[in-house]
Amino acid sequence: MMKFDIEVLDTTLRDGAQGEGITFSLRDKLSVTEALDELGVSWIEAGNPGSNPKDLEFFRLAAGLQLKNSKLCAFGSTRKKGVKASADRSLLDAGTQGVVIFGKSWDFHVKEVLQVEPEENIGMIEDTIAFLKSEGRSVIFDAEHFFDGWKANPSYAVSTVKAAILAGAGCIVLCDTNGGTFPDIISAAVKDVICKFPDTLFGIHAHNDCGLALANSIAAVQAGCVHVQGTLVGFGERCGNTSLAALIPSLELKLNLRCLPQGNLVRIGDLTRKVAEIANVIISDDMPYIGTHAFSHKAGMHADGVLKVKQSFEHIDPAEVGNDRHLLLSEVGGRSAIAQRVKKIEPSVDKDHPVIISLAEKLKKLEAEGWAYEGADASFEILIRQELGCYTPFFKIEAYRVMSEHPTGEAIACSQAWVKVLVGEVSEVAAAEGVGPVGALDNALRRALTRFFPGLAKVRLEDYKVRVINGKDATSAQVRVLIESTDGTKRWSTVGVSADIIDASRAALVDSIEYMLLNRD
Amino acid sequence: MMKFDIEVLDTTLRDGAQGEGITFSLRDKLSVTEALDELGVSWIEAGNPGSNPKDLEFFRLAAGLQLKNSKLCAFGSTRKKGVKASADRSLLDAGTQGVVIFGKSWDFHVKEVLQVEPEENIGMIEDTIAFLKSEGRSVIFDAEHFFDGWKANPSYAVSTVKAAILAGAGCIVLCDTNGGTFPDIISAAVKDVICKFPDTLFGIHAHNDCGLALANSIAAVQAGCVHVQGTLVGFGERCGNTSLAALIPSLELKLNLRCLPQGNLVRIGDLTRKVAEIANVIISDDMPYIGTHAFSHKAGMHADGVLKVKQSFEHIDPAEVGNDRHLLLSEVGGRSAIAQRVKKIEPSVDKDHPVIISLAEKLKKLEAEGWAYEGADASFEILIRQELGCYTPFFKIEAYRVMSEHPTGEAIACSQAWVKVLVGEVSEVAAAEGVGPVGALDNALRRALTRFFPGLAKVRLEDYKVRVINGKDATSAQVRVLIESTDGTKRWSTVGVSADIIDASRAALVDSIEYMLLNRD
Repeated sequence: MMKFDIEVLDTTLRDGAQGEGITFSLRDKLSVTEALDELGVSWIEAGNPGSNPKDLEFFRLAAGLQLKNSKLCAFGSTRKKGVKASADRSLLDAGTQGVVIFGKSWDFHVKEVLQVEPEENIGMIEDTIAFLKSEGRSVIFDAEHFFDGWKANPSYAVSTVKAAILAGAGCIVLCDTNGGTFPDIISAAVKDVICKFPDTLFGIHAHNDCGLALANSIAAVQAGCVHVQGTLVGFGERCGNTSLAALIPSLELKLNLRCLPQGNLVRIGDLTRKVAEIANVIISDDMPYIGTHAFSHKAGMHADGVLKVKQSFEHIDPAEVGNDRHLLLSEVGGRSAIAQRVKKIEPSVDKDHPVIISLAEKLKKLEAEGWAYEGADASFEILIRQELGCYTPFFKIEAYRVMSEHPTGEAIACSQAWVKVLVGEVSEVAAAEGVGPVGALDNALRRALTRFFPGLAKVRLEDYKVRVINGKDATSAQVRVLIESTDGTKRWSTVGVSADIIDASRAALVDSIEYMLLNRD
Repeated sequence: MMKFDIEVLDTTLRDGAQGEGITFSLRDKLSVTEALDELGVSWIEAGNPGSNPKDLEFFRLAAGLQLKNSKLCAFGSTRKKGVKASADRSLLDAGTQGVVIFGKSWDFHVKEVLQVEPEENIGMIEDTIAFLKSEGRSVIFDAEHFFDGWKANPSYAVSTVKAAILAGAGCIVLCDTNGGTFPDIISAAVKDVICKFPDTLFGIHAHNDCGLALANSIAAVQAGCVHVQGTLVGFGERCGNTSLAALIPSLELKLNLRCLPQGNLVRIGDLTRKVAEIANVIISDDMPYIGTHAFSHKAGMHADGVLKVKQSFEHIDPAEVGNDRHLLLSEVGGRSAIAQRVKKIEPSVDKDHPVIISLAEKLKKLEAEGWAYEGADASFEILIRQELGCYTPFFKIEAYRVMSEHPTGEAIACSQAWVKVLVGEVSEVAAAEGVGPVGALDNALRRALTRFFPGLAKVRLEDYKVRVINGKDATSAQVRVLIESTDGTKRWSTVGVSADIIDASRAALVDSIEYMLLNRD
């Protein structure tokens, strides 16, 4: 029984973990499971206990999680050739409701890589699935290399699917394992196989090697698949898996196919960011639906159009996926864009209010100096609060001194910083070292302020960008520094500009700390 | 006359520049143009001279570039309503062979946003195109919001296309301006309009708001389009444009449609990285075809399979796009490239010479540390000379000390540097101030050296770029500094890497001066 129109299986913890640079601790895996359950995917494919014995410990702990929406499944292969046991014992020990079994549907791969006779491969699929069914498991069959197989030898590919169905698999997932298939072939193959087995549930597992994982998943759903596999963020083997964070909104909003519990779509951005955070992966700003830039309008004409009629340059209402329109405050954006941002802090202000007019003036001046608030929402909020007159800084840097020296040709450079801060009437000095001058200043500043604001200990910098604004002035060019900070849940970004990179960094660091203090609960 | 099966138009410098966070200096735009011409796209859409007067200066300079493969085009709108002039004068002043004119094909947008009568909109399209044709320009018509228009009011959408054709447009580009259309609709709409105008060339301009820009471009080509628009890296308004670096390999390798001059596909990765570097944008490791991880195999089974039979987990041969399987970092390809450079200095060396082998090893180690010699020819030449053993540095920095201080809240930060150099047996110390720590060091170093090398007075730095390599390590991330120098006639570029921005700059400054001294007449 499917709860929704489309059954979503997330494989962040299995195929996702095969992506280069992705590793999860046991604690990470539990946190990802909770986030996926919160979002409400139908299945969480959480590991391969046969190939990774540590995964059994995860399944033991996960059993105590009391999931609200999702069911867990373990992943494993069919039995090996010439082996008696029908399945790896650990697949049962995992104690999950579902088991995903992968087998091969491409005769070439069966012969050349597995080095198994095509007939025996069919037997391996049957045995393993029938055994797991007899043990009371729901079985999902991942038909690996199905599309390559269907192109090369369609009758053999279809016979592997048939074997899995007869053995009792509840869902057959057609896999584009190498990610090289185009949507037209996906569509034709899915239709071909579905018309042969009209009573079976089919799914799609796509990879992004041609940048077509999303399109292939959509084509498969349009051709009749009701189960989709992917990873929330999109990472995985090579170019990654289908990003569910980009697929689910398309299915729900464009094809009217329910994938998640009612009301959960608006949380998809936050929960995807959470999983990315755990995986230590950056979500690209231009990610469909949930990226920071997904509803940004920079060209004046676009900003203007979208304010007149929103569908003029927006394909959906950003609020449906919990995102926001973002009018870039470049010269072109203009007063309406500014007013929209100010209203979030002070709803009574409209675009002809003197505060907006003076803010627009100030912004124009700052942008001419090289400031850019497009990627620095937190700094812009502080600027707005200053202009509204409702802002008193929490602290002030009275002085700092940063020294870098390079004593000999061979030694590593080393920097020290000294800083004096004033909080109310109380001052504090602190000194620290760092690998570079900016790191040293950052360390010293935190050391001096933590006495007053212990919450600061939680804050860390996530990203640090430097942009030389007018490179032609070479080492005396203006430098723009962008900093992204996090306290583990929220993220915010700030900006600083100066011809001195240390001073530009100082401005962005100060804004980052001020913003955190402003938004403490 | 089309040179290839598919005509590629790159709009990095126009639609790409509308992406959040993307800004190009005049020098940047010229470098991007050269890289795109090197790759061999048919058209380079390089700016909107009507809305951005600075672009005219670019077109004036670009006229002197002597492009080998590409033609330039300027971008602009149809005339405004109720205006006499048929086109903005600047579109002609740009002096390009081609002009891209955008007009609206969605009656809703025409009425609600432009606030123009649908009939007048048709007249605006006709007038502008006919005028530019009469002035001898090739005109490409971008039918904005075509697909939204085709869904809402197909006969009006088609009538805008017809007007453009009758007025003389050589190519009609159907635009999915909001990026919300699915490939099935793209395909149906393209077929519908092409069968009405079988003698016209059609193109596709897709956006990535649903993650479908690539799929939509491929669907359009399969339906009959012969012109594709996008940006090489993929950045642009909101979620970006079609990434040409991912589209072109799919068209050439999978659909057998030639897009670039023979032999150029292998350079697509390097040239895309170059454009990304100029735009200060990071190419994601899992980018299709060209990403560092695109052919990485982590799962043991995959690595194993790919060693037995490469097509088991690889949809194409990575070498076709100049990429590498990640298991075996190709030394062969690398070595021939290195040998080519070394021959310029020492013609007797071939690719199996021990110097090349050790240079390849060293390069691999340096690149892992974050060094990149693609944009730093002068530093690479110094590295080669060191390896050949025919290089003695002209000078040595014995020690330096840089101090930045910020005495009061209001005062401007100020930096001082002190440096001690050794030239032969003679040492010299000098001190200087600067607006930032790097500027101070630069000034002090020149002051100390000018006594020995008076020619240095002619050298100045032309450009200074900073790239944070692993932003996630925040202020202790590795920093790469690129410096461009000139003596008034020649230009050369150097690189330095360190976690300390001052030390990274020191390395690039030293190479810059050494290179100049090496190449004195």
